[in-house]
Amino acid sequence: MGILYAMKSRRSVREYKREVVPLKKIFEILDAGRYAPSGANQQPWRYIVIDSEELKWRIRREAEKADKKFHESAPYWLQRWFKDQGITLEKLFLTEAPFLIVVAGFTKAPYWLESTWISIAYMTLAAQSEGLATLTYTPGSTSFLNDILDIPREYCPVAIIPVGYPSEAQKMRKRTRKSLKEITFYNKYGRGFIK
Amino acid sequence: MGILYAMKSRRSVREYKREVVPLKKIFEILDAGRYAPSGANQQPWRYIVIDSEELKWRIRREAEKADKKFHESAPYWLQRWFKDQGITLEKLFLTEAPFLIVVAGFTKAPYWLESTWISIAYMTLAAQSEGLATLTYTPGSTSFLNDILDIPREYCPVAIIPVGYPSEAQKMRKRTRKSLKEITFYNKYGRGFIK
Repeated sequence: MGILYAMKSRRSVREYKREVVPLKKIFEILDAGRYAPSGANQQPWRYIVIDSEELKWRIRREAEKADKKFHESAPYWLQRWFKDQGITLEKLFLTEAPFLIVVAGFTKAPYWLESTWISIAYMTLAAQSEGLATLTYTPGSTSFLNDILDIPREYCPVAIIPVGYPSEAQKMRKRTRKSLKEITFYNKYGRGFIK
Repeated sequence: MGILYAMKSRRSVREYKREVVPLKKIFEILDAGRYAPSGANQQPWRYIVIDSEELKWRIRREAEKADKKFHESAPYWLQRWFKDQGITLEKLFLTEAPFLIVVAGFTKAPYWLESTWISIAYMTLAAQSEGLATLTYTPGSTSFLNDILDIPREYCPVAIIPVGYPSEAQKMRKRTRKSLKEITFYNKYGRGFIK
């Protein structure tokens, strides 16, 4: 799949089919993540692939608990956005998706958070290229993942990425983006670049 | 260009030719960045495209100053890594590359830093697909960019991305990555996934 096409056709997916995903595709996704650039080439990312139903349920319960606080203290505009998007405290995707990839970063590496998110971008694009949907989901707090998955404390979990085939409804969702003109400037902030 | 090929063939480039880059390619790169997913779809990224020689030199001087402190206080392993890589305090790429893209994030958006780095990943891959090299460079401090480029304080500059054609020497550089086995686990941290 062409790279620009992958970027422009990808959308965040919150509903998954229970269809089996070939393991080969999961390997491709993980392999892509590994090629991200990183601060001092420290490659601070670690991936934990989860397909255990029991673990998925434990993660979902804890994530929903962590998000409750986040949702309740969210500003009004964000609460409204959640409502408009149909985003509730039920994180179905954490148990519906056949695979979850938990991504953690080694917090002692320079620019570990930035590097780890580049790696996440690589994986979600590789998934798209493999015909699979993803979501970059970060619960309101993530330390419960250290406990559940035995992740050492110097690694900070930053995202749970569900991987699977999107539901039909999710495929149809529209995506909105600001125009290039709104976000791009020339030599000074505020000076137009795009006509 | 295929997406996996773009990821695997890309390398960080610190030496650029002075060859002119068609503006159309710069537009493609910026357009790609816009499609990144973001927290609550706030699209917190802003791009400032720089081709003014005077600005490039001012940025370079300030970045070198900011990096001096960072280099001097770096741990021994990092100083050695800089040396091994031939990375000095002279940031030639900031004046050699025909274009710099300064990327700033709106700090009041949820997950603004994470989102902005996904956008940076998209842009660097789009550049690769256009046959152009990049570097994701973050100086030791970035507030001088707010001053030089009139960026409002609620936007935090997170990277300066030089864009151009790589020097011949840089094309030949090897890239090293940890094996998938080292970084991937199955259901628990430490339990092997890859054989």
